[in-house]
Amino acid sequence: MPHLKITLAYDGTNYAGWQVQPAAHGPTIQGVVAAALNRLTGERICPVAAGRTDAGVHARGQVISFSTSSRIPVDRWPLALNSLLPEDIAALGAEVVSPEFHARYSARWKWYRYTIYNHSLPDVFSRRYSWQVRHPLDFAAMARGASYFTGRHDFRSFCAAGSPVRNYEREVLKANLSREGNFIFFDVVANGFLYHMVRIMAGTLVEIGRGRLLPEDVPVILAARSREKAGPTAPPQGLCLERVEY
Amino acid sequence: MPHLKITLAYDGTNYAGWQVQPAAHGPTIQGVVAAALNRLTGERICPVAAGRTDAGVHARGQVISFSTSSRIPVDRWPLALNSLLPEDIAALGAEVVSPEFHARYSARWKWYRYTIYNHSLPDVFSRRYSWQVRHPLDFAAMARGASYFTGRHDFRSFCAAGSPVRNYEREVLKANLSREGNFIFFDVVANGFLYHMVRIMAGTLVEIGRGRLLPEDVPVILAARSREKAGPTAPPQGLCLERVEY
Repeated sequence: MPHLKITLAYDGTNYAGWQVQPAAHGPTIQGVVAAALNRLTGERICPVAAGRTDAGVHARGQVISFSTSSRIPVDRWPLALNSLLPEDIAALGAEVVSPEFHARYSARWKWYRYTIYNHSLPDVFSRRYSWQVRHPLDFAAMARGASYFTGRHDFRSFCAAGSPVRNYEREVLKANLSREGNFIFFDVVANGFLYHMVRIMAGTLVEIGRGRLLPEDVPVILAARSREKAGPTAPPQGLCLERVEY
Repeated sequence: MPHLKITLAYDGTNYAGWQVQPAAHGPTIQGVVAAALNRLTGERICPVAAGRTDAGVHARGQVISFSTSSRIPVDRWPLALNSLLPEDIAALGAEVVSPEFHARYSARWKWYRYTIYNHSLPDVFSRRYSWQVRHPLDFAAMARGASYFTGRHDFRSFCAAGSPVRNYEREVLKANLSREGNFIFFDVVANGFLYHMVRIMAGTLVEIGRGRLLPEDVPVILAARSREKAGPTAPPQGLCLERVEY
């Protein structure tokens, strides 16, 4: 039975995240994609994703995997799936992979981008894809703060309280701040992410940018291993899963 | 009584255009802005706009004008209005103007941009702000076709049939095509626009890009003074009112 890897992009605004939830929470990406796979193949397929994105979080390069006995040629999959998907979810590519491939467990690293729109006036076109921070932000201080995230650390302070995890250690390969006009981009590449990790990092960087924390507080917060020491959780719409590498 | 000029940006996706319509068509930008002005000032204000954008059309630099006896300082207007506007409409600036100023009649020229996304796969993030054309487009041919729009012409062929207009002559100061990655931008600056004018121009350029019309057909279509000779009307979501100059 062929095993497939498919790359997806989605605008998460209208979804209760990736993972199938009790119906009351609204539709999920996984549910909508599974329904499209079902219509396309006649099989009950439950796709696995590289990153279980939260409600309102987007993806430009989510990766899913599943097995199917469908004989659709692999290069036809994206267009075939897109004809069945709503316009806020798109299949961008497909390839046949070995049966051991698992979208989540086989991932070597994932790249998330958090986008801040830093202006006192709203931007109507980016509001669904960024966090508007009205206060002036000290970019240089934020960039210095971000640099402390790189390396292997215990990220317990940057994990939502009550998360059912045993090992809080993750390796951050890159934690970089850049800007373009009124936008500030926070790019994080890591071998794994804890629940809300990027959003708490972004919330903490904004506290630094507003002068309510110092860049040098980041290593202190990391060492504290306590969610209460870090900044607030930045809102979901600024977050996007950009790419997964295997 | 002070006369105000306010610059607005809006995401037109969820509106039945600028102009107040019978309720069945859904909310309009004018209606929502008038309600916010009413709440802010306690007055019944009916704002006039530079361009009466259609349903689904956006604006980055729409201009409105109205008179008010409110004593709110002019620099406070944008933030005060934004606190009352939904997040898909934003006031970007305000100034006091002379009582003769009229957002539409005083305009010297307006700049509209039409955005085409030219790729076989959908782009979920730009779908609300562009027209996806799946077929490969000949950019050079389209650019040559666009160049024929500049100058003073009778644009009857590029006006929705049945439009209650007497004079179809308009002066196009600029009609320029550019591209960035998979996006093609068609920028038109003119002293006035007929109903659906930019969208019919864009639809015609796509016919040229697909090889179903020649660039040299544009002057022939202009001379015909008949809507049937031009290409189809491009969909509204690709259109944006960028700027108005007085």
